[in-house]
Amino acid sequence: MTKIAPLALTIGEPGGIGPELTLKAWLRRHEDGLAPFCVIAPLGIVEQAIKRSDAQVPFKVISDISETATVFDTALPVLVIDEPTADAVPGFASADTANVVLESITRAVELSKSGAASAVVTNPIQKSALYDAGFKHPGHTEFLAELAGPDTVPVMMLANAKLRVVPLTIHIALSDVPKQLTADLIIKRCRITAASLQKDFGISNPRLAIAGLNPHAGEDGAMGSEEQTIMAPAIEALRAEGLNVIGPLPADTMFHEEARANYDVALCPYHDQALIPVKTLDFHGGVNVTLGLPFIRTSPDHGTALNIAGKGIARPDSLIAALKMAAEMATKRLATGA
Amino acid sequence: MTKIAPLALTIGEPGGIGPELTLKAWLRRHEDGLAPFCVIAPLGIVEQAIKRSDAQVPFKVISDISETATVFDTALPVLVIDEPTADAVPGFASADTANVVLESITRAVELSKSGAASAVVTNPIQKSALYDAGFKHPGHTEFLAELAGPDTVPVMMLANAKLRVVPLTIHIALSDVPKQLTADLIIKRCRITAASLQKDFGISNPRLAIAGLNPHAGEDGAMGSEEQTIMAPAIEALRAEGLNVIGPLPADTMFHEEARANYDVALCPYHDQALIPVKTLDFHGGVNVTLGLPFIRTSPDHGTALNIAGKGIARPDSLIAALKMAAEMATKRLATGA
Repeated sequence: MTKIAPLALTIGEPGGIGPELTLKAWLRRHEDGLAPFCVIAPLGIVEQAIKRSDAQVPFKVISDISETATVFDTALPVLVIDEPTADAVPGFASADTANVVLESITRAVELSKSGAASAVVTNPIQKSALYDAGFKHPGHTEFLAELAGPDTVPVMMLANAKLRVVPLTIHIALSDVPKQLTADLIIKRCRITAASLQKDFGISNPRLAIAGLNPHAGEDGAMGSEEQTIMAPAIEALRAEGLNVIGPLPADTMFHEEARANYDVALCPYHDQALIPVKTLDFHGGVNVTLGLPFIRTSPDHGTALNIAGKGIARPDSLIAALKMAAEMATKRLATGA
Repeated sequence: MTKIAPLALTIGEPGGIGPELTLKAWLRRHEDGLAPFCVIAPLGIVEQAIKRSDAQVPFKVISDISETATVFDTALPVLVIDEPTADAVPGFASADTANVVLESITRAVELSKSGAASAVVTNPIQKSALYDAGFKHPGHTEFLAELAGPDTVPVMMLANAKLRVVPLTIHIALSDVPKQLTADLIIKRCRITAASLQKDFGISNPRLAIAGLNPHAGEDGAMGSEEQTIMAPAIEALRAEGLNVIGPLPADTMFHEEARANYDVALCPYHDQALIPVKTLDFHGGVNVTLGLPFIRTSPDHGTALNIAGKGIARPDSLIAALKMAAEMATKRLATGA
């Protein structure tokens, strides 16, 4: 069997829990059967994290990502960013380390675009600290999309072992959701989602379930008409393209075990409709996957957790799940030649 | 120990699954340790349901609800409605039996108001059939509230063994939610909810968790301001009254097991935010409880299921859970003398 290229793990906010999670994930490489990854970071930040850690974590500086696989079994491979930077202070996100945060992401993307890495796995960043340093993008995903190239439409998917969800609108006020939910938006996101489930998840004919915007999916217009005016025509158009789409479905009855067996991914008009079920079913093991990029990208489904950084108590479950999912996706791509 | 009075079970839509569920619940009286209940129905409808059933279900007509307990062990107690009515046709809701549906509810309420019954447990009704017969109320709950008396504000709670939720707005379009969510609405529903958890659920100092309207509870106004302008002042006012209220909380992170340990009930601005987690966690065992009435009322958390009526395949889990919860609530009331 051909092996996938190593995973490129970014360091994320140095003052957050990312460095600690990176060490903890590497320590569980055998237990969790992790594919080889290297972390892209300045040496000092890795050394500081190891010093603070209770565990002995051997590391090895590599000069090329291709060395990752041979090193990984006995030491954490570190692909060093050789930039002058400030020390990280656990619990504090600083503009002084923004250069490191952004360079780590940029390098990971370059390596993935060239094929030297099989995926980008990102530790959490602190947007406010990056803004203070002049960062102009709304968030992590938009920055990745720009690095990916023009016309990239990133689509956020949250996934765990029980459920995959795509919120059709994301970080906007609830009152703006009905205005922003258009047939065009639904169609584009469904196409990207279906293509990714085929290519990266090996599902040849993915079943997409779309949640209605309103309670009971509007109950034939009794409680809101968007299901009839916007959603049904979008679903018709997608079916005409040959996609396997059901909906709009009443959102409250589509996430229990029997209902989940009927689809491969649920697409929901707004944030909480998608994120409530996935986080209720498995809070610690969720993975954030960005679909629609020219490379694979996963990340843990949590933030920098500054309040617990440096205390040694952060749970690596979500980062480990993100590493595993990235490797599985890369394996599927390799198998299908996509 | 003083025993509670019998439960009064309404027949619901005769063409729906209510009659079948009633027989199945009675058959499981020993297995599930059910408190004595009687069904309020015309004799013909009960006889027809038994005839269609695979199981042998002995029944006994009682002339007074006080006979329920002595009959219950060996036969289904039937408190007969002596009105001329049409035959029920399984799978079809008919205006011709609307008189029976409404009389069953009315009798159950009278018995509960007088104390002869300890609670009203309602089988599902079909609103459309009642409307055809001239029914003027928006739904079951509003009809019960009118029977209860003036100034009754019914509050819907969905509950199972893992979670209790109260939707602050219910069957309205999502675009109307931000307009209808007022501080006054939040305050009134929280007061009723807290009082009922004390009286009916034996929780002396109930912990109420309120979900934010917007993603991440608005993230300090970055995605919607209702948390700051409407919800925080309402919560302040409730705390000033001595209620134990937390929130507004990000809705997506409040329903996993660890988070649920921090509160006794979650109050959510809109339907899907409340009903998605409760139905995802336990689809078949959910109970609909109406708080704020002068009597206890529970019902199964599903409709008439006309599509499967008469086929013998309806699951009685939710009706059984509703009967059990009503009995537990009545027992708490008796113990506290409320």
